[in-house]
This record gives sequence, structure tokens and C-alpha cells, in this order.
Amino acid sequence: MNKTVKVAIVGASGYSGEELVNLLLHHPHAELVAVTSRQQAGQTVAQIFPKFASHPRAKTLRFVEPNAELLATQAQVVFLALPHGVAAEFAVPLLKLGCQVIDLSADFRLRSPATYKEFYAHDHPAPELLAKAVYGLPEIYRNEIKTATLIASPGCYPTSILLPTLPLLRAGLIKPHGIIADSLSGVSGAGRKADLDYLFVECNESVRPYGVPKHRHLSEIEQELTKAAGSEVTLQFTPHLIPVNRGILTTLYLAPAKHFANAAEMETLAKQITACYQAAYGNEPFIRLLDGNALPDTKNVVGTNCIEIAWRLDPRTGRLIVMSAEDNIVKGASGQAVQSFNILCGFPETAGLI
Amino acid sequence: MNKTVKVAIVGASGYSGEELVNLLLHHPHAELVAVTSRQQAGQTVAQIFPKFASHPRAKTLRFVEPNAELLATQAQVVFLALPHGVAAEFAVPLLKLGCQVIDLSADFRLRSPATYKEFYAHDHPAPELLAKAVYGLPEIYRNEIKTATLIASPGCYPTSILLPTLPLLRAGLIKPHGIIADSLSGVSGAGRKADLDYLFVECNESVRPYGVPKHRHLSEIEQELTKAAGSEVTLQFTPHLIPVNRGILTTLYLAPAKHFANAAEMETLAKQITACYQAAYGNEPFIRLLDGNALPDTKNVVGTNCIEIAWRLDPRTGRLIVMSAEDNIVKGASGQAVQSFNILCGFPETAGLI
Amino acid sequence: MNKTVKVAIVGASGYSGEELVNLLLHHPHAELVAVTSRQQAGQTVAQIFPKFASHPRAKTLRFVEPNAELLATQAQVVFLALPHGVAAEFAVPLLKLGCQVIDLSADFRLRSPATYKEFYAHDHPAPELLAKAVYGLPEIYRNEIKTATLIASPGCYPTSILLPTLPLLRAGLIKPHGIIADSLSGVSGAGRKADLDYLFVECNESVRPYGVPKHRHLSEIEQELTKAAGSEVTLQFTPHLIPVNRGILTTLYLAPAKHFANAAEMETLAKQITACYQAAYGNEPFIRLLDGNALPDTKNVVGTNCIEIAWRLDPRTGRLIVMSAEDNIVKGASGQAVQSFNILCGFPETAGLI
Amino acid sequence: MNKTVKVAIVGASGYSGEELVNLLLHHPHAELVAVTSRQQAGQTVAQIFPKFASHPRAKTLRFVEPNAELLATQAQVVFLALPHGVAAEFAVPLLKLGCQVIDLSADFRLRSPATYKEFYAHDHPAPELLAKAVYGLPEIYRNEIKTATLIASPGCYPTSILLPTLPLLRAGLIKPHGIIADSLSGVSGAGRKADLDYLFVECNESVRPYGVPKHRHLSEIEQELTKAAGSEVTLQFTPHLIPVNRGILTTLYLAPAKHFANAAEMETLAKQITACYQAAYGNEPFIRLLDGNALPDTKNVVGTNCIEIAWRLDPRTGRLIVMSAEDNIVKGASGQAVQSFNILCGFPETAGLI
Repeated sequence: MNKTVKVAIVGASGYSGEELVNLLLHHPHAELVAVTSRQQAGQTVAQIFPKFASHPRAKTLRFVEPNAELLATQAQVVFLALPHGVAAEFAVPLLKLGCQVIDLSADFRLRSPATYKEFYAHDHPAPELLAKAVYGLPEIYRNEIKTATLIASPGCYPTSILLPTLPLLRAGLIKPHGIIADSLSGVSGAGRKADLDYLFVECNESVRPYGVPKHRHLSEIEQELTKAAGSEVTLQFTPHLIPVNRGILTTLYLAPAKHFANAAEMETLAKQITACYQAAYGNEPFIRLLDGNALPDTKNVVGTNCIEIAWRLDPRTGRLIVMSAEDNIVKGASGQAVQSFNILCGFPETAGLI
Repeated sequence: MNKTVKVAIVGASGYSGEELVNLLLHHPHAELVAVTSRQQAGQTVAQIFPKFASHPRAKTLRFVEPNAELLATQAQVVFLALPHGVAAEFAVPLLKLGCQVIDLSADFRLRSPATYKEFYAHDHPAPELLAKAVYGLPEIYRNEIKTATLIASPGCYPTSILLPTLPLLRAGLIKPHGIIADSLSGVSGAGRKADLDYLFVECNESVRPYGVPKHRHLSEIEQELTKAAGSEVTLQFTPHLIPVNRGILTTLYLAPAKHFANAAEMETLAKQITACYQAAYGNEPFIRLLDGNALPDTKNVVGTNCIEIAWRLDPRTGRLIVMSAEDNIVKGASGQAVQSFNILCGFPETAGLI
Repeated sequence: MNKTVKVAIVGASGYSGEELVNLLLHHPHAELVAVTSRQQAGQTVAQIFPKFASHPRAKTLRFVEPNAELLATQAQVVFLALPHGVAAEFAVPLLKLGCQVIDLSADFRLRSPATYKEFYAHDHPAPELLAKAVYGLPEIYRNEIKTATLIASPGCYPTSILLPTLPLLRAGLIKPHGIIADSLSGVSGAGRKADLDYLFVECNESVRPYGVPKHRHLSEIEQELTKAAGSEVTLQFTPHLIPVNRGILTTLYLAPAKHFANAAEMETLAKQITACYQAAYGNEPFIRLLDGNALPDTKNVVGTNCIEIAWRLDPRTGRLIVMSAEDNIVKGASGQAVQSFNILCGFPETAGLI
Repeated sequence: MNKTVKVAIVGASGYSGEELVNLLLHHPHAELVAVTSRQQAGQTVAQIFPKFASHPRAKTLRFVEPNAELLATQAQVVFLALPHGVAAEFAVPLLKLGCQVIDLSADFRLRSPATYKEFYAHDHPAPELLAKAVYGLPEIYRNEIKTATLIASPGCYPTSILLPTLPLLRAGLIKPHGIIADSLSGVSGAGRKADLDYLFVECNESVRPYGVPKHRHLSEIEQELTKAAGSEVTLQFTPHLIPVNRGILTTLYLAPAKHFANAAEMETLAKQITACYQAAYGNEPFIRLLDGNALPDTKNVVGTNCIEIAWRLDPRTGRLIVMSAEDNIVKGASGQAVQSFNILCGFPETAGLI
């Protein structure tokens, strides 16, 4: 348990990369041996991320140009925090050279190259790897992650939608069609890029939908929903941009598989839902099933790898409303990737995350 | 047209009251003769609202204790910006004394005292007035407002939901059942009250649903949807609190009355929706029907009496997504009340509002 | 008084340009005939600034490429909202062609080409015009503005520092040396430009000084302080970036010219300061001298052309603390330019501004 | 080193209390045995602070009514996060019963009961303890803290002002008179209390000074500055409220003891300042002396126990400008208290803080 694994991060200058640096610098079983960034090459981690400058390693570790051959000699596990399309270029040689790869991009999340092309508008750069990759949602694919060589860490919206929905679908408690996910995301979700749309003045005191009705993340969400339901699921998904740095709040509109006609039937269904979530997540360290009057609030999860989930049955409409809150950069990206890393390496799953 | 009407505001110290003061101080045809507030009595408007202190009238106009008899001698039109339940207490004597009353509370929005009791948890204080009151949504009830003596100005969420939905329902373009409204509101919607939940630190960097699944505003929304549909409408409505001062963004999930099976049918439906909105709102000064790629953004309407509306048909799910953005305190409250005032008095509808 | 002057805006796509469009579209005596922007040419004002889309003129007025000859045939007064260096290129031909020019850049604020070069790092592009330009601070140079052809509208920081300081210096109530100005600015002060430093995530939950110790605005502030003092003034000025869209809060640390040794002398000095400000600004429509316990707050001036000023004598240190709050884009830029325009054209000074 | 000390927190429901709970729950050598709060008695930590709900101890540890006798049997070290005046009431019996007390209030920070009365407007409740208390600024009083029984943990503003100033005063590099501290604080500094002034809508898009010119924290700052200078220091201090949750940014205006007349002398002085800070803080784990062009930014320290310090000599004015950034709730309150706890108990000073 006291062993240490050498890790590297390719593309460490964005928000997910920064959080990976944070988590891996402080991880009890990881030794961060390399961080790459074309723009920041030559600078120390302390210079680029003053927030971590007090960590001794941050003063000496310098960003380097990405070089798969070199990285493979240095690190056993390589995290890729790169744009989609680019990640695959690095994954291929790293895997060949014997590294285990945890990819935070969308490149290996889909099983179907055709779906990839439909949603990402170019041919998949390494379709032969798709069958090999494991979708890195630990609460769902823990066993597969243990023996993976290529982990496709899920997107932020998908995590916030899939975790609350999959157990209900698997248990047959909700109908697989007609699912609606209305999501609100902090601005870090747009990445650290110089774009007028994400200037402070353009986002502050602003709330807006975007990417309606066909956001790219739909593809991986529908893939996983379909798998859980055993039948084709088409999702209605509306993302909104909200003036917070971090956090995703998702509200799901679901139809119970069996209509409840009165208070007693509603009570029965409520017990089934409680039991379903309890069975699925009762022992999960990073899932908080809220009870009583509590509803999710992003401020309760920001900076943590936790997701809050609450639900309500509406006797007036017959619907089930499920709400979740997570940190889009932690549970929605880098924290989840480190959770997979812990599983992969046989470390306690919460190592470096609590 | 150059005539001036004397107006008063009862309960002018909250956010809606403050905006009424702002709009009526600057209104070309209104003379603000009295503002009341129990806590602020004796102070000038300039002292309580430094933002308006440069207006000459703000330096001399002092808050007074509310007194219906006195107000009735001073003003022809009285705006009530009071909590529900309290507003009715003032409306009754003011109407008897010959004033016209524009009430911003929920007290006269419902036609049914039973529904009022169900949602507001006490008997209606003046049920005999319910039949007399006009629901002050100018784009829908312009003619009724002209001759009203008691105008029940709509709530902020209802305005953001009803304006986009009513024309589609009336035209039979959408199904009356299964409607979902997911709304995001700025914190001013909670009012100016000392409550830990609305402290800066509790709201900033926080996004959260509340009042799930049965918010009070449901009652007036369903009343109006039902009227437009000609059949009972039950709404799914989820409000969320968002860290902005002002603004409501509503996303509506609607089912077209007629399923579209292919691109051509979708195109036909799109033309019908365009025509429907154009017929209903093409000449409305405060409704902006967005075209092209534009989607609503609260920052485009904050501080104005405008509502932005955009919609998308989703060929993957068959749904119609309609989105709206408004300033919850202007079009959602005080601006809309002044719009009704203009209609009531025969002034240009945009007077003091553009 | 009912005459209308044709105006144009060159460089209307930044935050100051946007506010100029807003103010001039709604101005009772201005007809906005042209707006230019290289990037936005061909688009309507309504498309670029959805916030003003409800104004009838916004739907038809299209951005054009800037062309001095053409502008001179269309407009009598031309506002330049361009970067420094570029503004002079347009001012020269426009003035030759008989236009009056109101320049919001720094190009004509300094009397000395050498100082310009020291602070802006290039030779002044039109030094022959410097003697001709009037520094457009209406409360100080109202008479000069009346007959100007070229008005150099002051910067945002300078306005917030000069208005509170100049009357005290002129009256000899404070020492001209040792003045410290500590200023806090909203992010719109950085302009609408795609720069990582001004992304929402980089500014939200962040407070930081910048440009320490030699900010460019020092040059014009010192020029005006020196003129008022009659002797060379060197200023200590520290700007900070604060996560608000708009607003500048300046705190000034001043030394009374005559030391006060006891409560009675402090009282005497306090009366002199009150009288000095009253004489200078008692009748100014846009300056609010706060009394009682009130202190400036940017939220009271945002969206207005007003500046709030309050002061305190500190018996413990012997210093005079003066604080001001303004909207950096209105009184600090576009509103002040329109105020000068009103004076220049003989309109009421508050036209279009209250 | 593996020993564990039992600790309790009295008054754990405010922002400092919440952060103490966070730090002590996760501290490797602390066992949090009791948390008190009159309002929250009976509830678990998980219920009151959902953010920590995933910590196993948070689910079982319940708030209790404060009772000194009981606490003394449970805990060796008791943290007081109470209002001034109230803290002393608990400190007295706890000390008698043999506990070590770390008080986060102002009650034991001053050596002089007269100064306490001047600034806090009531007699000191336990003046006999003032000589016994150690001012808990670890970088200055590390040795005294080791053997203390009563630690008066410094205020947030004092920490941000004293740490940058004391080494310069001690070294005689700056003049002891004429010091100005201009500070900007996040809203959590006002505490978790239901007050209209701190509502989201009142703080967001607002920047304002307050408590000018005599803030309570002046008393402890001047006490420590005077001690370091060896002569009476009177400080000019202006706090401002800024719309961030956490963080204090302080800008200090200082006069070098020896005037520098040219670049060479400035260079010499710069080297002395560098050497002074290096000697004082070069090995401090929580002080970051910035170099190059870097300036402090609260976003780099929020959530950490670090303070950033940078400085500039201004050749134009001859002044030394020093700037610092800290998290007002961590280094400015609870983190610093835990740092003292580590010293007191002989743990590594960074235990539970990095």
C-alpha cells in the first residue's frame, strides 16, 4: 500500500490539467514526474500555478514539451488532459510503449466510430482502440477499471446525468424514453481559452442556454443510458452557462415505469427508489444521497470529488424529479480520473481525494 | 397625452417597490405623490435609495406610514408592493374610495379562492374581489386592462413561462399536458429580507433548486395555461436560485400537438410556430423573438421591460424547446405593472419604459 | 432647444462604444447616423448589441468600415472610442473636414508630447493638436468645452481621482505632495478583448493590484493636479481589479495644508472642506456630496453619470480621507463624453443622461 | 509524533467555526471530540455543514450546548470561535480546569484593558488574563506559542498588515509613522449573520469602504507595530467590502527610513528589503515572497493557509508599496489557529494545513 506510482500529465495548463496537478502533487501514492504543455514549456509548476507554489515539488518540476517516448520512460500512468482528437495521438504511442493511459478527453468514450464522427465531425483517429477503452465511471465500471490499460474518463455533464439515472434504469424503475436533463454549468467548463464569450463581463450577471438541442456530450450519455436500459435511449439535454467558477447542477425529469395512482402507490414507489439508490450507492464514498428536505447545492460539493443526489416524486404530474450537484472539474473530470487511477493501481479509492 | 396621473406606492422598500419608485419618478405621465413603508417612514427616497438621489423629487418625497384614506385623497392609481395577504387589506378600502389599484402581490391573481387557500395556506382575505380583478399580462389581457379597477400584476416566473407558451397553446400547436418549465432566477426574487439563505456567501458560487415540486406560482400559471388550452393543464415547474442579482431564464419542454416524422414535416411545423409567434407578438414592443442562432441571455434584458424568446425543434426527440429571458423585477414585476398603468390611463404603452 | 445634432461613433464595438450607442440612441437631441467597427461592418446594432434591439433605430443602423471623409459628410459631432494612437489618425482628418471631435482615448489628454511618449511609449501622432484640445471634465472645464472643436474626454481613474481632489487643491486646503490614490475597478475597465487574464474564472473570486507603481493614467492625473495646485504634483496611484462588471471606488489619502491640533481646529477645517465642496459642486447635477454616515458604494452609481463623494477627517492621524464612486463606463467614459456633447451643442447638460 | 490531541470547538456555526471543523476533522493529530452551538445543538456536523458530510465523523458528531465543565473533561485544547466579550466567559473556566485555549475572538489580543475599552466599548471581562495571553502570529511569536496556555489568534486584517510590515519595522527599513493600510475583504469577514447589508443583492456588483476611519482591528495592529518599531505607531487603515466570498488584499503605503535619491540608492535599498524578507520569512512554510513581475492575487491563496507578499519601490514618489493576499478565514482566522495548535502540541507546523 505504501508503493508509489510514477505519473505524468500531458496538457497540464487547462483547468482540468491544473486540478490534476493539484490532486497528484498531494496524492500519497503518486509521484508526479512530468507535466507537459507546449506554451508553458520551461516554466515551473509554481510559476504557472501560484496556488500550488508552496508545495516543494512545484518549485522544481518544470513543464516540458510533450514527447511520448520520453514520457513512457518516466511514468507508468499517463493522464491526458488534451482536446479531443489530439488525445488519441498521444494515447496510441503511450499504450504501445507500455504505459497505462487515463484520458480526460472524449476520444475513447464512445464505442462506435460512427457516433464519434457524427458528434465530433471528423473520423476517429484510432478506432481500433475503442473496444479496448473502459468508460471510467468508477461507481459503474469499477471491475473493468481494475484491469484497464486505457481509461476514458467521462465528461462533466455525463457524470452528473448518468450517476443519478443508471441505477433507476437498470432496476426498471423509470421509462427509458422521454428522459430530460436540464444542466447548469460553471464557466470553467468552457476551458481556459481566450474567447470573448467567456470574459468576466460577458458571463457575470448572465444566464444562458447554449448548444441547444444537440450537445456533443449527448453521444456518451445516450450510449451509457442505452446500455443500462437495454433499449435505445434518446435524451433531451439542455446545458446552461451560469456565473460560477465551478459546479454542475442537473435536474432530471423522469417518468416512473409504473404509474402511481394514489398516495399509497406513491409511497411504495418511493421506497423502491430509496432501496434502489441505497443498493447502488449506499457504500459509495463519493455519492451523497440526501435525505429529509435537503436539495443539492453546488457549494456543498465544489472542491470535492462528491456528487449530491436528491429526488422528489410529484403527485400532481406523476413524474420523478432527480437533482444532482458536482464539481465539474473534480468529480466531473480530474477527481474522477484520480479515482480511476486509485482503482487501477490497487490503492484505496479515496486516496488523495478526501 | 400630456396629462399626468397622480400615483402612490404602498410598500416601497423592497426590490419591486424600489424599481417602481425608479420607473414612476422618471415616468413622463406619472406624478409620484406618496410612498409608504412602515420601517422607513420619515426618511426621504434619496436617503433610502441613494441610487435615485440625484432626482429632484427624491430629495423631498418622504416615506409615510400607509393610510388608505389619506392615499385615496392623494392618488388616483395606487401600486401595492406588499406581501400576499397584506395587499388585499389595502386594496379593499382603496377600491371603495375610488382608486384604481395595481397589485404586485399574488392576492388577486387567482380566480378561485379554493386554489388560493391550497397554495397560500390561508383563506383569501377578499374573495368577492377575485372576479373583478384583471390578470395584468398586457400582451394577453390588454383590452381587459383598459377598463380595470383592480389589476393583479403577474409573478416573475409566471410571466417568463406564460408569454412563450400561451400563443402555442391557443393555436393548438402543442399538447396541453406534459409541459415542463425549468426556471433559473436571480436572488432579488427572494426579496429584500434578512435571511441567512440569501447572504452573499451562501448564494455566491452556489446553484440550487428549491421549492420542488410544488411552488406557489404554479397556481396562477396553471390557471392561465388551462384557460388558453381549454382543458386542465398541470405543470411541472422547477425553480433554481442562481448567483445573479436579476434575471429569470426559463427553459420549456413542450410536445408538438402533431408528431413530425421527417425533415419536411419539421419544416412545416417550424413555419407554423414562426407564424404563430409572429401573429401574437410581432408588434409587441416588449417581446423580442430571436432569430438565427441567437438564444436568450438575461444580460440582454436586465434593466429593461423586454422578454427574449427563442425556440428549437429537436428532430432527435420530437420536442419543442422554448427559452425565455426577462428581468424578474422589471418585466417580471414593476415594469409590467407600469405597462398596465400606461394601458389603464391611455398613455403610450412604452411610456417611461424605453 | 429642439434641434437635433447628427452624431457618429467610430469604434463602437467595445464597452465604451456600446454605452455611447446606448446613450446616443436614447438622446433627445442626437441623431445617431453612423457607427463604425472593422469587425462588425455589415451587421446591425441590434445584432451586435441585443440589449438595444428593441430600439427601432437599432434594427436598421448597420456598422460600417470607418471612413473619415464619409463620416464628415454625415455627422457634425464624431465620438472616437478607439485605442490610443489610433484615435489621433481619425481625429486629424475629421477636424480638417469641419467635424467636432469628442475623443474617449488618451490621445489628446496631455499637453506635453514628451509626457505622452514617456507613458505611451511612442511619439505622439499629432502633437500640433495638443494645444487645441480641451480636457473634457465638464465640472472643471465647462467654459472651454463650449467652444471646443476637439474634446479629450478623461479616463475613468482620472475622473474618480480628479473630481474629489481638484477643489481642495485649488482652495489650498490640502498639501500638493504626498497624495495617494488607491482605486478599485470593475473588469469592464480592461475592455472587451479576448485575454486569458479577464476570463470569468480568472477574475471571479479574485482581487488583485496591477500596473504598480506606474500606470499610464498617472500622466493626465498629475497634469491636472499640477495645474490646480500651481506646483508640480507627483501622485501615488495603485489600481486594483475587482470582480464587478462596472464601477470604480477610489480612496484618497490627503494631508490637510494646515495641521489640526484639537477637536475645535478639526471642526473648523471640516467646515472649510464642506464649504469648498459645496461651492465647487453644490449645484452640479452629476456630483453627489454624501452627508451623515453615508459612504460611497459603486452600486449607487452604476448605470448613471453620477459620482458619489464622501470624506472623513481622522483625528488620530491628521489625514483627510476622501472616497469616490462612479460607473467607469458612464461618468468615467461615455456618459461624461455625452455630458461634454451637451455643453458643446448648447443642450441642457443632463439631456439624455438622467 | 503519532499522538493525537483531543480538541473541541466552542461556537462552531459561523464561518470561522466551519473552517475549524473542516481543518480539525482532517487533521492527522487532532481528534475533534466536541462542537458547540446554541442554535444547532442536537444536529450532526453533516446536517449543518453538508460540505463535510462525507467525512465519517461528521455523521456522528453532534453539536451540543456549550458547557465549560463538560468540555474540560473531553478536550485538552479548546478553540473559541465566539463574538468578542463572549469568548472571555468561556476562556476563564476552561483555563482554570486545565485546558489550553486558542481564542479566535479579539478578547485577548490586546495587552491594555484601556485600549480594549476604547475600541470595544465595554470593560474587559477578564483583564487578569491579558498578560498571560500570547498573540498567536506564529511567524512572529513561535517560541511564546510553544508554552502558551491561552493563545489570542490574530484578526484577519491584522494578519494581512502585520506580516508584511513587522520585519521592515524591526529592521528599521521603514519609518514608523505615516503608515497607510488599504484593505479589501471578502464578505465572509462580516460573519454568518442575517443582516440586510450582507445580502447577495446588496454585495454583488458593489464595492464600498466601511468603518472609516476607526476600525476596531486598529488597536491590535497598532499594538504590534508599536512593539516592533519601539515607538508609538498610529496607523491609517481603510477596509473595503468586495464581492468575493473569501480573501483579503492589503496594499500598504510605506516610507523608507532612508530617502533614496537615485537608481543606485534604490537598488541598494531593494537589496536590503529582499534580504530582510528573506531572513524573516525565507523558510516560512506559509509565506510566499513573490518575485519577478508577480503581484498577489487572492485567488492564489483562497483555501490555503498561505499569504502572498510582493513589494515595489516607486522611484517617482520615493515610497515603498507592499501588497499581501490571504484567505481571511484560513490564514486570517482558523488556519492560523491550527498553525498555533500545531506549535503548541509539538506537531509539524504544517500538519493538517498543506
